Amino acid sequence: MPDVNPRFDGQRVLADLNALRAIGAFKTGVHKPTFSEPHLRSLDWLAARLPEAGLTAAIDGIGNVLGSSAKAGPKLLAGSHLESQNQAGWLDGPLGVIYALEAARVINTDPSIDGAVEVAAWCDEEGHFGQFLGSRSYVGAVTEAEIDAARDRSSDCTMRQALHDAGFAGRPRLHAAPGRHIGYLEAHIEQGDTLESGQLKIGVVTSIVGIWQYRITFTGAQNHAGTTRMAIRKDAGLALARFCVAIDDSFPAVCGPRTVWTTGRITLDPGAPSIIPGRAEMLFQIRDDNPAVIARLEEHLQRMAAELTARGGCSAAVERIRTGAPAMMHQPFQDAIEAASAARADGKSVRMPSGAGHDAQILATIMPAAMLFVPSIGGISHHWTENTDDVDIVTGADVYVETCRRLLAGAAAR
Amino acid sequence: MPDVNPRFDGQRVLADLNALRAIGAFKTGVHKPTFSEPHLRSLDWLAARLPEAGLTAAIDGIGNVLGSSAKAGPKLLAGSHLESQNQAGWLDGPLGVIYALEAARVINTDPSIDGAVEVAAWCDEEGHFGQFLGSRSYVGAVTEAEIDAARDRSSDCTMRQALHDAGFAGRPRLHAAPGRHIGYLEAHIEQGDTLESGQLKIGVVTSIVGIWQYRITFTGAQNHAGTTRMAIRKDAGLALARFCVAIDDSFPAVCGPRTVWTTGRITLDPGAPSIIPGRAEMLFQIRDDNPAVIARLEEHLQRMAAELTARGGCSAAVERIRTGAPAMMHQPFQDAIEAASAARADGKSVRMPSGAGHDAQILATIMPAAMLFVPSIGGISHHWTENTDDVDIVTGADVYVETCRRLLAGAAAR
Repeated sequence: MPDVNPRFDGQRVLADLNALRAIGAFKTGVHKPTFSEPHLRSLDWLAARLPEAGLTAAIDGIGNVLGSSAKAGPKLLAGSHLESQNQAGWLDGPLGVIYALEAARVINTDPSIDGAVEVAAWCDEEGHFGQFLGSRSYVGAVTEAEIDAARDRSSDCTMRQALHDAGFAGRPRLHAAPGRHIGYLEAHIEQGDTLESGQLKIGVVTSIVGIWQYRITFTGAQNHAGTTRMAIRKDAGLALARFCVAIDDSFPAVCGPRTVWTTGRITLDPGAPSIIPGRAEMLFQIRDDNPAVIARLEEHLQRMAAELTARGGCSAAVERIRTGAPAMMHQPFQDAIEAASAARADGKSVRMPSGAGHDAQILATIMPAAMLFVPSIGGISHHWTENTDDVDIVTGADVYVETCRRLLAGAAAR
Repeated sequence: MPDVNPRFDGQRVLADLNALRAIGAFKTGVHKPTFSEPHLRSLDWLAARLPEAGLTAAIDGIGNVLGSSAKAGPKLLAGSHLESQNQAGWLDGPLGVIYALEAARVINTDPSIDGAVEVAAWCDEEGHFGQFLGSRSYVGAVTEAEIDAARDRSSDCTMRQALHDAGFAGRPRLHAAPGRHIGYLEAHIEQGDTLESGQLKIGVVTSIVGIWQYRITFTGAQNHAGTTRMAIRKDAGLALARFCVAIDDSFPAVCGPRTVWTTGRITLDPGAPSIIPGRAEMLFQIRDDNPAVIARLEEHLQRMAAELTARGGCSAAVERIRTGAPAMMHQPFQDAIEAASAARADGKSVRMPSGAGHDAQILATIMPAAMLFVPSIGGISHHWTENTDDVDIVTGADVYVETCRRLLAGAAAR
């Protein structure tokens, strides 16, 4: 095995990423919501690049870009997404797509390698219209009715209208051909500081954590903020604040080593400065890769709510509104990433779960799937300041291409 | 002095209040926002009644209804408002207007009484378009520019458009004629449970509390709710929740005996379930009739915010956005209400501050002003279930008319 793959070109990877950054630029990041003009232009840009890697490009009826190879031998599916969160970073999505493109360029044009990398850009991983609609469509988990009902969470535009405006209406949706791929590989920035703080270069993802989401509702008595004495109030907003603090105080003793929990939204009803809130609601999320931990925490939440209600005053109700089972990454693929890191990144890798959701968790439902992470500076993500050192981007690409090579070689040898 | 005033008619008072309830009825209350069709119909209804009390009716350029008397002798200004909060109660406003109408009917048509009661319905006391725009216009405190800028807080319709649609555009705004009135009297439901719980019939208002309002802003670091470890988070929403709880725990030791405080609205930014809030904001209000108490509490708030910021993590900033000085009610008028309560309500009265704002605080800036309260069942207000027992409504009206008679008699005797 050569120390350097002469066909791998780190500068080409950086140039491609910067080309995508220039489409829909926002400060040092991008603003590229699903089906926005810059997003559509990015899809076209990718489709135009794919032939360089010997791939036939198609954009399907849900906006997935797929490149297929006629080369003989095993096929590895590889990719990520091109749209962004609003006013967000330049690497979340494009990094994994360009790594896949580079791997396809290196491998598919090399007659000495048996097999090919097929590139995918899954539409709407960022959830402007739903949850993983592109990759879920590919694995056959999206009905026409779900698309009928989908709306842009910012503009309220229907997905049907957006697909029509993009020129995708009426196109067939492409689905995975059973047995075609040996598996799926996705690269992503870490979106956390584990790699950076440990001076590591590659995260070998072991699992993608499940997300459990709850609506916790507090009911008190709406009344006048000037005339209602403090002693007789049933302030639902205050009950909510106390509940938030109690969660934060008590969860550490009940949670697992990597559990995270977040109150992302609070609504007081009616939300007027002169009215004591009669009702309050919080959206609360727990992530862990161990369902037993989640079960324990959910039971704890329910007990807290029951105790609050039993004390009189306000009542609390905990309603689970989203359940996401964790996805385990394929063990032999993890080994391949680790081996490639040993060869190309001085072994500076660590096995770690992903706290964020990714298309890989969807692909994992129908084929072996794996992910590798590169460091993200300051752990920032979903913000335009998100960034990764160019050197780390190139190292990650090198490890990624080497991983693809090893996975195809292993499959071809069987 | 007769035990019963033969001209006073409690059943007429109840009939009038029910006639107004039937205009814009919502469940057992009303939905009568400022300049809505039912509100405008209510203004017309009142204007049509005023001649029965010997008054010439006018509706001016800001929607105030004013009845003026040509009768000789001292004049007492009396009234309240006719619009309601959204989906709110039937008595908040109309009670004071109908008491004033009844007093005018009894007194103005009685040649044995020197002087007259002039009736007013102040527009928009409920603040759909601003703060006390009708009564503030009457005392000369509203500029044309303020009207230009005013918008309905629910529909965003401009006040100019609403005035035009109501047919009031271009009419002059009527202002107080200096020296015309000996003072102003307003009746209202208590909007609290002091009278009911003490089995009292009349509240003699000593002062209308001031309202101080604050925007308290927390700044942390926005980040991904899945990938950011708990230990390194700067969650602005959690900082806000802890601040709310700290206020509630520490204020009782610093506040006055009747201070009330309320967090009416909480906003987390960006408010998404999967993003740690980087910024959070609460609207916080304090009411008290003692500015020294407010000053102490404001200092306490600022110290809490400074301490939070000094601890690192999130920072907090307290910004005062509204200052309302308390209004003291005229002492001799309070004495007159108390004497009338002794004569007509078995002395079942108590002196008490008003925790809510009322037009009387605006009139108090240019003339002696006073208020009397009647009991409200369960202390409920700003809700359609708001109510007062018919017997208490009639008793209150009797005391009100008697108070007007005594105030005019006192003025005529000087």
